[in-house]
Amino acid sequence: MEEIKKKGKFIVFEGIDGSGKSTQADRLVRYLKSKNIKAVVTNEPQSDRPVGMLIRQALKKQISFDEKTIALLFAADRLDHIQRISEKLDEGFWVVCDRYYFSSFAYNDTALNKEWIISVNSEAMNALKADMTIFLDIPCDISLSRVSKRGEREIFENTERQNRVRNNYLELFKRFKDDENIVVIDGNAKQNIIEKKIADKIDELI
Amino acid sequence: MEEIKKKGKFIVFEGIDGSGKSTQADRLVRYLKSKNIKAVVTNEPQSDRPVGMLIRQALKKQISFDEKTIALLFAADRLDHIQRISEKLDEGFWVVCDRYYFSSFAYNDTALNKEWIISVNSEAMNALKADMTIFLDIPCDISLSRVSKRGEREIFENTERQNRVRNNYLELFKRFKDDENIVVIDGNAKQNIIEKKIADKIDELI
Repeated sequence: MEEIKKKGKFIVFEGIDGSGKSTQADRLVRYLKSKNIKAVVTNEPQSDRPVGMLIRQALKKQISFDEKTIALLFAADRLDHIQRISEKLDEGFWVVCDRYYFSSFAYNDTALNKEWIISVNSEAMNALKADMTIFLDIPCDISLSRVSKRGEREIFENTERQNRVRNNYLELFKRFKDDENIVVIDGNAKQNIIEKKIADKIDELI
Repeated sequence: MEEIKKKGKFIVFEGIDGSGKSTQADRLVRYLKSKNIKAVVTNEPQSDRPVGMLIRQALKKQISFDEKTIALLFAADRLDHIQRISEKLDEGFWVVCDRYYFSSFAYNDTALNKEWIISVNSEAMNALKADMTIFLDIPCDISLSRVSKRGEREIFENTERQNRVRNNYLELFKRFKDDENIVVIDGNAKQNIIEKKIADKIDELI
């Protein structure tokens, strides 16, 4: 896939569950609009496209797929998503995305071959890199308590698993630091303070 | 994915469209049953599983996906298929499959990175190799005339494209000859003669 020429900017939020990504993504879109910048929020897996809908059913155990099949479906949904994101960027929108390929790399760390997952996603990496990836870093116990409140606790195996995902993220950021613009933000502060820190970083791109 | 331990044998048919794969797959199953061997036929993409059904809709242009997204969906459907094939093999069935990963490699030859497609399918290649891949080789003009009769001509661009797919197959078989058991059969003979040639080859596996 050829690299996409962009008029707008592409901003990605990453983090373990409960890290506040969707809250901050919404706040960032509001902030951009306050600056008269056209902006939209989106997320992975897509909720309104066939592959994303299959993945969501699989994550809820409504359909049974093994882990590697799901990894390929995430990559397929992502390439499909890129087509739609690029249309928006081309119209001059900033696109703020909740999760992107780093999620696939950080979460698929068990029976899966990590290098295989990266090569499966290489077409996405070549086609569209984020102008900025914002990692909201929170301790795993905070993640678990936030997610418990949402009634989603069942998706976690345990704190140890959450910790491993967080460590995977931090390792990936080291590995890809020369190719990616990654910003790590303390996600354990008050939402207004986090929002302000993100806005300061985003101002550098405007 | 770990290599699957098999009780039955896994036989794959490959070839350009109209080469007689599904006819010969059915005849082979009948032949195996006549030898008191349990056998089933299957094909890709799967017609009764969600990902295969999505691919079939995409091939009929009922859903729009770009070529690389479809390539990933084929790989996902294949891993899902392998789970089901392996269950059958484990029950002692011989599984005869119409198309497998060589189809992905031979057909995805245009804008796609061929090495990427191979790496996307590497998990399938590690998990389950065919005990025998039977390539039914026919000239491209025969393919086109057979497929025209079925009213499927629209899926072809032209003879040149068919020719390229055939050449891709032959190149792939050279490349993978040390890892795969590939048999090339003249698909332009009478069906009974082809069936006999296949049976002779299969007898070596029984």
